[in-house]
Amino acid sequence: MSVVTIERKVLEKNDEIARKNRELFARHGVFVCNVVSSPGAGKTSILERALEHLAGRLKVAVIEGDVQTDLDAQRVARYHVPAVQIVTAGGCHLEANLVRDALASLDLSQISLLIIENVGNLVCPSNYDLGEELKIVVASTTEGDDKPLKYPAMFRNASVLIINKIDLLPYIPCDITKLRANALQINPSLQVFETSCTTGSGIPAFCDWLVSRCSTLAGR
Amino acid sequence: MSVVTIERKVLEKNDEIARKNRELFARHGVFVCNVVSSPGAGKTSILERALEHLAGRLKVAVIEGDVQTDLDAQRVARYHVPAVQIVTAGGCHLEANLVRDALASLDLSQISLLIIENVGNLVCPSNYDLGEELKIVVASTTEGDDKPLKYPAMFRNASVLIINKIDLLPYIPCDITKLRANALQINPSLQVFETSCTTGSGIPAFCDWLVSRCSTLAGR
Repeated sequence: MSVVTIERKVLEKNDEIARKNRELFARHGVFVCNVVSSPGAGKTSILERALEHLAGRLKVAVIEGDVQTDLDAQRVARYHVPAVQIVTAGGCHLEANLVRDALASLDLSQISLLIIENVGNLVCPSNYDLGEELKIVVASTTEGDDKPLKYPAMFRNASVLIINKIDLLPYIPCDITKLRANALQINPSLQVFETSCTTGSGIPAFCDWLVSRCSTLAGR
Repeated sequence: MSVVTIERKVLEKNDEIARKNRELFARHGVFVCNVVSSPGAGKTSILERALEHLAGRLKVAVIEGDVQTDLDAQRVARYHVPAVQIVTAGGCHLEANLVRDALASLDLSQISLLIIENVGNLVCPSNYDLGEELKIVVASTTEGDDKPLKYPAMFRNASVLIINKIDLLPYIPCDITKLRANALQINPSLQVFETSCTTGSGIPAFCDWLVSRCSTLAGR
């Protein structure tokens, strides 16, 4: 029982810091997305394509979360946006205090969109609020169409689903209609985008949605 | 500090149960593999192809670990092997006590190979000994060649690496030589197999290795 109590306290403490992060984001009018997926589903690649597409349209900053290495922050920094790498050193998810600490390196008054790329893990990050406006879950076609049923919490807690690697559909046994239906069965209110970082397909629609959400926030 | 202490106690308790599982496996001469990977890397598909190939050669049983659903046990049961599903109901990894409980449904005296398919998660299962002889990590080419560097603990703790989905290499930006080198940089003693569950490539070599390991164990 003591472990359960401590786990609850950890989550309560996290939620308290997340609330403060959220207040800070609201004060600066920053739209914040927490991007989650399995390892290798294409979070960083989608981000790279989106940064290309959003250049000159939105002021974007990125927080990268990884178990080890700053490879992702290096990839993102090529697009001339502020990028902060959090290395969890074995930790399986980002927590609100890590994001709070990373914010010290960003000037929020110069940012309209902050993308937080979580650790590649389809289980643990679903429990941890970082103070984001919403979670975006990326599911790649190569992972198979059953993943929403097998890892439901992540799909339940997300607002947006990006189905990535659609260019590989001809070569793999993934039924995208089933993948979409399985996700919507878990969470009927998911907004779904279909993308390929190889062909660029679907990236403009996703970016238009980001721009529109940032405008809505600015108009509040 | 108290959380750290409790976490250590949880791991100590797990290791104690894992030791007992290991003794039980040794007593019955069962070779046990703990198969780990990201969600959708192809653990179950490799298992299905291996079960086809091993039919009549080895007496195999399977323990499936999933956050939700018994979809994987259903898939495996089609191959007429004993299959037990553990549903962790949100838990991000298998623990030794869950395996111990699942063993109650298996007759170990009738088994020479037990494959435990862990929850799809490239971070958390690396810490939890289940009593297995060795860990097999599956990395699919579609996840990219940087994964061993970004999730090193899993590759460090594994004895075998299966690089899966090699049939997709012509269509994706994955350098398999680099993937292999990155994995061997983390763990130079990894035994590496390359497989495709679509073409069947590499499955016979992996199965021959399993048979050879089971024979070695029987001869001890």
